[in-house]
Parts: sequence; C-alpha cells; structure tokens
Amino acid sequence: MYRFPNSPKIFVDIFHFDVEKMKRKLENSELARLDVEGFKNVEKNPIILILDNIRSLNNIGSVFRTADAFLIKKIYLCGITASPPHKDIRRTALGATESVDWEYKQSTLELVKELQADNAKVIAIEQAEDAIMLHDFDIVSDQIMAFVFGNEVKGVSQEVVSACDIVLEIPQFGTKHSLNISVSAGVVVWDIWSKINALKTKKP
Amino acid sequence: MYRFPNSPKIFVDIFHFDVEKMKRKLENSELARLDVEGFKNVEKNPIILILDNIRSLNNIGSVFRTADAFLIKKIYLCGITASPPHKDIRRTALGATESVDWEYKQSTLELVKELQADNAKVIAIEQAEDAIMLHDFDIVSDQIMAFVFGNEVKGVSQEVVSACDIVLEIPQFGTKHSLNISVSAGVVVWDIWSKINALKTKKP
Repeated sequence: MYRFPNSPKIFVDIFHFDVEKMKRKLENSELARLDVEGFKNVEKNPIILILDNIRSLNNIGSVFRTADAFLIKKIYLCGITASPPHKDIRRTALGATESVDWEYKQSTLELVKELQADNAKVIAIEQAEDAIMLHDFDIVSDQIMAFVFGNEVKGVSQEVVSACDIVLEIPQFGTKHSLNISVSAGVVVWDIWSKINALKTKKP
Repeated sequence: MYRFPNSPKIFVDIFHFDVEKMKRKLENSELARLDVEGFKNVEKNPIILILDNIRSLNNIGSVFRTADAFLIKKIYLCGITASPPHKDIRRTALGATESVDWEYKQSTLELVKELQADNAKVIAIEQAEDAIMLHDFDIVSDQIMAFVFGNEVKGVSQEVVSACDIVLEIPQFGTKHSLNISVSAGVVVWDIWSKINALKTKKP
C-alpha cells in the first residue's frame, strides 16, 4: 500500500550523490494514499494525542492532518477544545476529521486516569523541572503512549502534569518560550514515529 | 546559557522510571531563554529555511517561531510570501521576527542558484519520484543546508525542484496528500537538529 515499504537506509554523501532520478514531482494520484475505509482498517501506531483546552481551530485542524499522515490511533479533544464538524477546523484538517478516530472528553484529568487504567502511558509535553528532553527519550516498549498538548498560553495544567507518567520537553534555544502547538504535535509525532520505525526495521 | 548543556542520554524504561522529580512546571522566567541581542550573537545551526510562495500569514509566523527555537541561520521569504511587519505574522511569530535573520527575494529560482554558488546545499521538501525519505537522510557534512518549503496548494514548483541538489520527502501514510507547511518545517527542523546534535554529542 505504501510507496516505500522497505526503503533502504541511504547514507547520503551530499557532495557526490546521484540526484538525477529524484526530481520529478508526483501528482496526488501517484501518492497511493489510503481512502477513509482503508484508513479505518489499517494497523495504527501506538500513539494517542490529547488536546487539552486548545483554543485555536487552526491548530486543532492541523493536528488532525498530522494524525492522519502518521496513522495515529485516536485524538481526544478535551475541555474548551472544539470538536468537528466546524468550518475552521475543516479549513486546516482538509478532511482528516473523517479518517482519524476522535472523541470529546470534558475532563483531561479523568481521561488521563482512564487511559492509565487501560494500561497506556500518559506523557505530558511541557517544560518542567526534570523533564526528559525529547531527543533523550528512547522507546523500549510497544505500550500505547498518550501525549498531552496544552493550551496555547497556559500549557498543560500542573494538576494534569502531576497525574501523567512522564514529562517530555522539546528543547528550545532561542528567545521565545514555546513552539506553536500544532508544530509541537508534529515534532513529537515525527520523533516517536521515527523511533518506532527504527525499532521495526532494525536488523536482529 | 542552556538549561541542558550536556543532557545525558537516558534510556527510559517506561515501566520503572522514577518520575517524581520531573513534574514541576517551570515559569517562563526559569527557562533561561536568550534575549534578542543574545540570539544575534549565538552560533547558529547550519540551516536556512526558504519559504517559496507561502500564502498563509499564520504559517509564516509559525515558521519564524520554530526558527527562533532551533537557532536557524536565516529565513528567505520568496515570491508572494509576505514579510514582517504584519499583524497576522506577529500573531503566530510572537516576536520571533525580531530575533531570526530574514530577507525577501522575488525569485526563488535565483535564490537557489545564489545559495549554491555560495556553497550551500539546497534541498526541496517535496513528494518526488525518487525522493529520499527524511528518516533515511543522514547528515555527513557540516555544509549549510537550505530547505525549500512550497506553496500550500502547489508545493515547490517543478522548476525550483529541478534546480535543487536533493529532494527530501516526509513519509506519510494516511488519506491526505500533505502536512500543513508550518508542521512540515517543524518536522524537518527537528529531524535535522536531532541529527546534528547526535553527531556533536557522539563519543569519539
């Protein structure tokens, strides 16, 4: 189903790499994407995203699109986070609300406890005193990981952070305090997907 | 200057990890971020971002914020991409247009050639016939890398893709054709930053 089922590890010498064959842009029809039914049936990655009181409809839609791309198991929309259908979510989700499984929950804290009772590890994405830096986080289990992304201004509440199993932080080196929340979700999903993929494709 | 100058590699056993010390959220004042002057003077990563005809002001602002967080050398705003100051860029950039170096260029194609003449490698982020998948892309040089992100609908033009040195693709497995452009930029910057960081911290 994928165009790159067993893409070999390429060590790219950017001084002397044959690039003549890589440059024809693909039409959308050549991308071999899934349809919605195919998406529902395909095996998902053991990743859940929790949007904790997200204000921006653009951000919500953008997270749906990321979740579609990386076969995320489920998105939970909590507190003030708006739910589909909504035209401003659709504008950035571009239909990904049809493919990705989602559910609204009033209380993020209760959801965290439910998921833990269900044997998931719940991981806050926050800046905290002894947070683990994302690049130092190695996956050693195929247990389901549920990542909590917090409000654009207040982040994840201390109460929810305290209830989580782990706190992960995206290291940042500039003048600003945080990344845009849909960018944070993209970074975390890509990082975890890469690590899952590396484990799967590792030679025994 | 950083809170985590030599963060040791942690192998996290998510079943038995002592997490009691990691959960206190930090105040903004505890994050030890740079001020604008500090940002201007600090050594940057060998990464340039090229925004090729980006329509959305939200996306432009969000890319500035990502560039600030990961000490990007410069952003080029090309074609119809709007330039600061603009209130809708500021709304997502949150001041990162003050720290990150940027320049407007009318022609993306001419910019690609200028950067190549200046010994940078220019890398289109696109879906192309034999594109290298991002997770297969290993950095083997500290040459400056300039990544081109294209228009929200049309992507990077074939003419510009053909002029680039390499085409990199973010693998995607769902129903949609592409990620939001500010998410794509976040994913690429995080991936490349992680690989640079891994090289820097590798034991000899």
